[in-house]
Amino acid sequence: MSEELKQKIVSRVVKDLQRIEVELAENLHPHLELVSEIARHILFSGGKRLRPLLMVLSARLCGYQNDSTHKFATIFEYLHAATLLHDDLVDGAAMRRGRPVAHAVWDPATVVLVGDFLLARSLTIASETGRSQIIRVIAEITENMSQGEIQQLMNRGSVRLTEEDYLEVIRRKTAVLFQGACRVSGILADVSEPKQQALADYGRNLGLAFQMADDLLDYTVNSSKLGKLVGADLREGKLTLPVIVALKQSTGSDRWQMVEIIRNQDFSAEEFKWLIGRLQKYGGIEHTKKRAWEHIETAKQALASFEDSADKQLLLDIADYALLRQM
Amino acid sequence: MSEELKQKIVSRVVKDLQRIEVELAENLHPHLELVSEIARHILFSGGKRLRPLLMVLSARLCGYQNDSTHKFATIFEYLHAATLLHDDLVDGAAMRRGRPVAHAVWDPATVVLVGDFLLARSLTIASETGRSQIIRVIAEITENMSQGEIQQLMNRGSVRLTEEDYLEVIRRKTAVLFQGACRVSGILADVSEPKQQALADYGRNLGLAFQMADDLLDYTVNSSKLGKLVGADLREGKLTLPVIVALKQSTGSDRWQMVEIIRNQDFSAEEFKWLIGRLQKYGGIEHTKKRAWEHIETAKQALASFEDSADKQLLLDIADYALLRQM
Repeated sequence: MSEELKQKIVSRVVKDLQRIEVELAENLHPHLELVSEIARHILFSGGKRLRPLLMVLSARLCGYQNDSTHKFATIFEYLHAATLLHDDLVDGAAMRRGRPVAHAVWDPATVVLVGDFLLARSLTIASETGRSQIIRVIAEITENMSQGEIQQLMNRGSVRLTEEDYLEVIRRKTAVLFQGACRVSGILADVSEPKQQALADYGRNLGLAFQMADDLLDYTVNSSKLGKLVGADLREGKLTLPVIVALKQSTGSDRWQMVEIIRNQDFSAEEFKWLIGRLQKYGGIEHTKKRAWEHIETAKQALASFEDSADKQLLLDIADYALLRQM
Repeated sequence: MSEELKQKIVSRVVKDLQRIEVELAENLHPHLELVSEIARHILFSGGKRLRPLLMVLSARLCGYQNDSTHKFATIFEYLHAATLLHDDLVDGAAMRRGRPVAHAVWDPATVVLVGDFLLARSLTIASETGRSQIIRVIAEITENMSQGEIQQLMNRGSVRLTEEDYLEVIRRKTAVLFQGACRVSGILADVSEPKQQALADYGRNLGLAFQMADDLLDYTVNSSKLGKLVGADLREGKLTLPVIVALKQSTGSDRWQMVEIIRNQDFSAEEFKWLIGRLQKYGGIEHTKKRAWEHIETAKQALASFEDSADKQLLLDIADYALLRQM
């Protein structure tokens, strides 16, 4: 079913995706070749373009027609790429999408600055919309993402994290960007505040579900498909929902041994396999899937105030597919 | 004369400086205490507030009156602080204003993110002006600063740099921010494009002169007054105008020995003293002073289209003092 849904979606968005690719390449405007090289490493490495695509499709749902729509959509991919560069560095990540991270290929210092440059590019394009409300959304996204990532750093290795702590982090570091991409369409289209809010709700819930599904992958998929080492989150001290739930539900030696593995961070493949068994036994995997689907349902319901249309169906399908492809 | 001029300026801007301090503290709005702590380390460490002050005074020159002027002025100090956090990290600096740099006190990863947060704060406040033209200026500043810093990194250690290479770097990393602070006042005040350009020219030339004077300090002042190790620029591989000129003018063993010291980077106090002697002998110090004063003159002439007034005189005095205090 997942493959069928994928074909259905792809056939309808292929032209938008092509235009987004063109705009991403054309709007970079670097002064230095090195900036272009590093920016292209992160920008053209198989990203799904989900954020700009959501912006384009939400805009269409609102009846917004403008030659610059796809250009404006790059705001959200440039912003996303900027935070990936900084976050990979901050997390000490080694691989992304099957390739070495930028700071392993180039000087980390330069990578920080290219992140700043990409942020500035997204800002320049945002200013071309001529709408200060949009700038406010972009600024809010950036404030939230930086603080979400700091919160995640501060939480590192803590076995006392709650589901609420986790939600707070993923809301800031992931959901706010999805939310912003959808809301900006509403602002451009001048729809009513309730409709803008509905789009924002759709985006936020989709973003939450998307991050939960992404966090699940570390415990359900092998390295080659994942494009990075499995267990990478845990090795970075990043405790995500499956682990948080299992820690909360477990007792005795199971809990104690899980804590040992988490604290060690240099665990063996066997220990990691054992840990996955505990995440299953104590419902960490199931609970995370359930929560992710709940957010997908909430996302879809948020669009209820929009009349049924092919564009609306596409956004509903994308919400389903965002999880199906990963589960 | 320098002290007299200082008193004259201070007596006229003391209230503005106080209001800027209050706004800087009140508009930080951090969600996390750690963010606040790191941001305050860089924000409240004896900065001169020259950038926000220039914005306030240029606005007054244009007859702009608004309760939010000093709040809007924080845009340029937050932006400045954001780039200081990233640049100190990138440069591998150890001290700033007599204190350890932020990344020596806190986790460098967190410092990168607090830089992003400060940039986002400046953006949020910029969006409150409701003027997308202002956002374009802020974005342009950020694009230039990140690429100027990358260019400086790429130039590191090169003994073939020209005066033009140097000017290109300091224009991007320093002058564009001064220029933007002054131009934004003109945009807020809705003055004509030629007047906006005049303000921008004043700011850019003041910024160029200011950076030249700052770069001279490494060769003219002792460590305790400087608040960081003398020779720090050269130890970071940063060749500034006094060195570039001396390298160009020198020949034979003088040039050869200078190159040796520059390439070594781990030079002794004695070698550094000898090097300063060469900068003097070959006119590197004099040439830099001369260029700085030329830019101050150009900055002052840029204001010719504004009627004489106490506000204008203040901007002229500040231009003079920006160099006098350092020479």
